[in-house]
Amino acid sequence: MRMIDLIIKKREGKSLNAEEFDFVAQAAAKGTVPDYQLSAFLMACFLRPLSDKETAFLTKAMAHTGPRLDFSDIKMPKVDKHSTGGVGDGISLALAPLVACAGVAVPMMSGRGLGHTGGTLDKLESIKNFKIGITPKNIHRQIQKIGVCMFGQTKDLAPADRKLYALRDATGTVESRPLIVASILSKKYAEGVDSLFMDVKYGSGAFMQKLPDSKKLAQMLVSTAKLLGLNSRALITYMDQPLGRAAGNANEMYQTIQILKGHKEIAPDFYEVLMESGVQMLVISGREKNADKARKMLESFIKDGSALKKFREMVKWQGGNPKVADEPEKYLPNAKLSYDFKADKKGYVGFIDAKLTGRACVQLGAGRDRMEDVIDFGAGIWLHKKAADAVKKGDVIATLYASDPKRLKAGAELFEQAVKITAAKPKPYKLIYGIIK
Amino acid sequence: MRMIDLIIKKREGKSLNAEEFDFVAQAAAKGTVPDYQLSAFLMACFLRPLSDKETAFLTKAMAHTGPRLDFSDIKMPKVDKHSTGGVGDGISLALAPLVACAGVAVPMMSGRGLGHTGGTLDKLESIKNFKIGITPKNIHRQIQKIGVCMFGQTKDLAPADRKLYALRDATGTVESRPLIVASILSKKYAEGVDSLFMDVKYGSGAFMQKLPDSKKLAQMLVSTAKLLGLNSRALITYMDQPLGRAAGNANEMYQTIQILKGHKEIAPDFYEVLMESGVQMLVISGREKNADKARKMLESFIKDGSALKKFREMVKWQGGNPKVADEPEKYLPNAKLSYDFKADKKGYVGFIDAKLTGRACVQLGAGRDRMEDVIDFGAGIWLHKKAADAVKKGDVIATLYASDPKRLKAGAELFEQAVKITAAKPKPYKLIYGIIK
Repeated sequence: MRMIDLIIKKREGKSLNAEEFDFVAQAAAKGTVPDYQLSAFLMACFLRPLSDKETAFLTKAMAHTGPRLDFSDIKMPKVDKHSTGGVGDGISLALAPLVACAGVAVPMMSGRGLGHTGGTLDKLESIKNFKIGITPKNIHRQIQKIGVCMFGQTKDLAPADRKLYALRDATGTVESRPLIVASILSKKYAEGVDSLFMDVKYGSGAFMQKLPDSKKLAQMLVSTAKLLGLNSRALITYMDQPLGRAAGNANEMYQTIQILKGHKEIAPDFYEVLMESGVQMLVISGREKNADKARKMLESFIKDGSALKKFREMVKWQGGNPKVADEPEKYLPNAKLSYDFKADKKGYVGFIDAKLTGRACVQLGAGRDRMEDVIDFGAGIWLHKKAADAVKKGDVIATLYASDPKRLKAGAELFEQAVKITAAKPKPYKLIYGIIK
Repeated sequence: MRMIDLIIKKREGKSLNAEEFDFVAQAAAKGTVPDYQLSAFLMACFLRPLSDKETAFLTKAMAHTGPRLDFSDIKMPKVDKHSTGGVGDGISLALAPLVACAGVAVPMMSGRGLGHTGGTLDKLESIKNFKIGITPKNIHRQIQKIGVCMFGQTKDLAPADRKLYALRDATGTVESRPLIVASILSKKYAEGVDSLFMDVKYGSGAFMQKLPDSKKLAQMLVSTAKLLGLNSRALITYMDQPLGRAAGNANEMYQTIQILKGHKEIAPDFYEVLMESGVQMLVISGREKNADKARKMLESFIKDGSALKKFREMVKWQGGNPKVADEPEKYLPNAKLSYDFKADKKGYVGFIDAKLTGRACVQLGAGRDRMEDVIDFGAGIWLHKKAADAVKKGDVIATLYASDPKRLKAGAELFEQAVKITAAKPKPYKLIYGIIK
């Protein structure tokens, strides 16, 4: 097989088969064809979009360029979750231990934050000494013992994806739905789960700004995951405004712990997405087919403390101090400085823009513009008020945290642009747009 | 300016401006952006074809990556010719000196043969010691003195083209009309002529097999050349069967000399394309606007010996023995072996396939499969019979020349497939399909 023939075939809009995608993925992983051929191929794929079947072939081929995690000896259903990311989307932190309480295995591979969206790994690392680089052997052991492990992508997992993603990033071929799907699913497929739930967000703070785009992405993710033999569903959720009250790493971890402690009143929207996600994971994994029963089960795990206990165990297994689960105020890092952002008039919080909030967090030191930037775990924003809350002049809408006065100022200036105070109470928004099965 | 932005712009089908194409061409010539970005850009150009205007921008940008030849002090009109190539298409060898007789300057840059098509430079080198690597200074001097010079592309002429062509060749982006046009015209534009005639062939032995494709290419070549400020016309000519009687380097040189000596009966089809090409060159250069008068002028140059004289001068200036013009049999190289291909039945020569004839020539040693292959100048085919000629069983249709018995056999086997003997006389074909102004 020759790369040039595959480029020409794709250039002409013809379909490639499993063997041909295997050739491409192996070539990308092993460096056996030059980058300029791979990038021409990627542009051809961009402009002659892959079919669902081709996307499944490519996904599998990419997954197979590295070893697949093997949980076949663990008899529980294995389920993971992927979120397309947003602002304040710390759902996974609570979701993984919560769902694991039901006796399903949750090997959850997560990523880091970049740009205005946060990353689960960074949030986990706001717990001192929490280890996210875990060997496949240790992931397996932890799953066997406590049913949950949250970890970063290892170097040898789907190496073709790393190569192809770097090339796409440099050659204007990122925004191709089939290529996005293959990149996401190749890593999840390599993870060795049998069910995969996805949270596809839309709105200013999401990867897909528009609802129809997000819907199409969710549909393709679910249909391709199914072609790969994974039980799969996706929720389409709102990300025009931040989810929950917390943005920034320690802030979101604090909120997670409060939720697991049962304080759902702290962030009802966060709690709702958490519960609905958990329900879907129990349903697709086959653990509990009835959604109402699944929800009641999850509620009971919070009520009886088993969710918090599972979280505590996970923290302990992964090197952190489990006491963080009981006294997060004491054990989570704090930024040196804070600033109260106040309402300048009477009215309602009309809108808080998610993207601007996320960008303000980056300014505060909570995120990254480039992968090499260092994170200040204590930096971030706490939203005392959310959309539709009434405010008087001088009420604190949010507290901003940073460790550097310049950063605090820059973050505050950006966040100011994110908030709109309106005379009329805004209409409520739909948090969960729909479900793709 | 960033390459990634230009890739994305082109990917979305937007038009790039002169400055942007300049950035791309300079980057290609200087190696300032990685190959994988250039190849992604080329694939985007392939699938989002450039407009005529964009093609002119790219052409000029590529031409400007090296110095342009400067003939501004030479007061004669400067005209060149480009042929898309074929089998037996040695027209340029006779055309350059012939047209130069009219007092126009013909700095003719030519290429080498590859695959089944021959190359003018190789044909010129069948004259021992004929030099085709000439410095710009010496090209200028020769043009000033005798009005004609035939030379190869120098390394510093349009270096972006060399780079981009190599990448296109490796990434399946060769067959893009705008990219083909830019590649051809960038070199011609850099040559510093003010008029450019083109012979765009169609048929099995041509770059474009189909007439409509060839027509579209001719139209785009002419319109783009005009946007570059060149007076330009193209002929669309037949290449389903070989042109003339000769294929192979010394064979074609021999035929050229016979034609310049006035023996037009030796290859009437070759003579016709030669004359029509010469007429167009005189017309577009402004030397003689009336086509009939131009033709009579060219005929007179052959009749009175001035065309042969000009050829002789050119050979002498470029290091060859001018006596080749008088006794080509004596001075041109011969292959060691020959084989007479005979008719196996009575009838007519129905068809001789150009591509198979060209491929047979490569087998005989007259051409190249790869650029590094060495050419046997004496190898080739002489067609004693052409389509519509009556034959008896045993009549020699063609003589094949090679220096290696294996090559002779392989060439003969291929050539056998090229020839069809038919009971009925075939319909005559149209040699010149049309003219694009």
